[in-house]
Amino acid sequence: MIGASYAEKLHSRGWFVGGISARQSTVTKALDSNIIDCGTIDVTKEFVSNFDIVVFALYPKLFINWVERYQDCLKSGALITDVTGVKGAVVYRIQDILRSDVEFIAAHPMAGRELSGIDNRNSKVFEGANYIVTPTEANTPGAIESAKELGRELGFGKISVLSPEEHDEMIAFLSQLTHCIAVSLMCSKDSTHLADYTGDSFRDLTRIATINENMWPELFAMNKTKLLEQMGLFEKEFCRLKEAIASDDLDTVREMMITSTARRQYFNKK
Amino acid sequence: MIGASYAEKLHSRGWFVGGISARQSTVTKALDSNIIDCGTIDVTKEFVSNFDIVVFALYPKLFINWVERYQDCLKSGALITDVTGVKGAVVYRIQDILRSDVEFIAAHPMAGRELSGIDNRNSKVFEGANYIVTPTEANTPGAIESAKELGRELGFGKISVLSPEEHDEMIAFLSQLTHCIAVSLMCSKDSTHLADYTGDSFRDLTRIATINENMWPELFAMNKTKLLEQMGLFEKEFCRLKEAIASDDLDTVREMMITSTARRQYFNKK
Repeated sequence: MIGASYAEKLHSRGWFVGGISARQSTVTKALDSNIIDCGTIDVTKEFVSNFDIVVFALYPKLFINWVERYQDCLKSGALITDVTGVKGAVVYRIQDILRSDVEFIAAHPMAGRELSGIDNRNSKVFEGANYIVTPTEANTPGAIESAKELGRELGFGKISVLSPEEHDEMIAFLSQLTHCIAVSLMCSKDSTHLADYTGDSFRDLTRIATINENMWPELFAMNKTKLLEQMGLFEKEFCRLKEAIASDDLDTVREMMITSTARRQYFNKK
Repeated sequence: MIGASYAEKLHSRGWFVGGISARQSTVTKALDSNIIDCGTIDVTKEFVSNFDIVVFALYPKLFINWVERYQDCLKSGALITDVTGVKGAVVYRIQDILRSDVEFIAAHPMAGRELSGIDNRNSKVFEGANYIVTPTEANTPGAIESAKELGRELGFGKISVLSPEEHDEMIAFLSQLTHCIAVSLMCSKDSTHLADYTGDSFRDLTRIATINENMWPELFAMNKTKLLEQMGLFEKEFCRLKEAIASDDLDTVREMMITSTARRQYFNKK
């Protein structure tokens, strides 16, 4: 979904775009839809060395495996980048194993959907969304600038630069923790008999309980320390609220509501 | 907000509507806006006995206090109803203290907003929303029918009948627990520096963290047993997920995601 959306947008802006997929049907569809100029299911030096920039839209472990196995196919001087949702566990590893004449600059397009596959491509999701570049000390200023330029070409609303660690803490709190909450809530009990009475509160809170069970467990595992830390922070407050209700300490309940109301206003859409 | 929305809708449909408020400014505004036919800040028999149906849009304890103090003002044969968000702790108490020639039939219009006061009245929020009548064994079939008719007059999308106990468990899970989660999440840490990176997941999940700290603690307290039960169910699943992540048991993480995805589909808007 993300890979094809990148291809479509860049091709429409005049870039020469090639695509590699595991499935021939995907390559054929991409060619037929005119979102790539050439494509293949075979990773060869002949194909891969045509490209100055290579974007990996793969699950983290597959991405690392690809680089280990096929990095000889990359053109000397090429820039490689990714779309992975966790950074610390990926970036240093790739930079560690990568040839010295190729540079990896990591980036995270924060514009996913609960959908996958080329048929669900939609480059409109980039509009107004965040594109975060996460360089390390190994990166050159030129590569950082190229990554930001790629984000702009794709039409992202905001381009930021964070360290891999800052990125992972932010993702652990804003994204991974919220998915953990939604999943846990749906697992709490078989609530399907209550569907008729559901208002927007429950519906909004559990929208992300529809989740890709092939991708997310790996992302959680690769950001385990930071995620467990954020889960602990939430659990502590949830228990504090529970104990306040249990002991009729309504002052604490009220104080927590005042805090949450005050903080939430910073998150209203601008 | 709810009281004025009821008044506006019923008045627009030709009902004779009177209003009692604690504030003269509210009464004046209601008269000037032509949403009531008459209004007062003084609770007198002369005023109250004009009405066949009396709707109490008050916090639960104030409602009980009113009935204790002023029930002599009600017309013999009057029907009284309410809009209270918890039922078990209110319905039996009111029916217990109420004169035998007046009937109380409880109802819950599930159409609140994070706003209060006459200026925020909006009877459009009733469209498509649920109106739940919660009779006890003390209620007559005629009163139940009248309450349902009132819901239809107000324009609610769905009229249901539940016991006070069924209602309170449903509210504890779908509404009170979700508010507890959103409040706890905002209290977990000062996350305002992350606002720039926020996507829809976090925004949707915390919308209800903006909460009326004068009303909700009382509602939680009045549904304490059921709410603590639901909070416990959620906490157990959240801890199960946390432990699975901590111990790299990705099969359990995956299995919970499959369950949550399957259950969530029942809650998609029809």
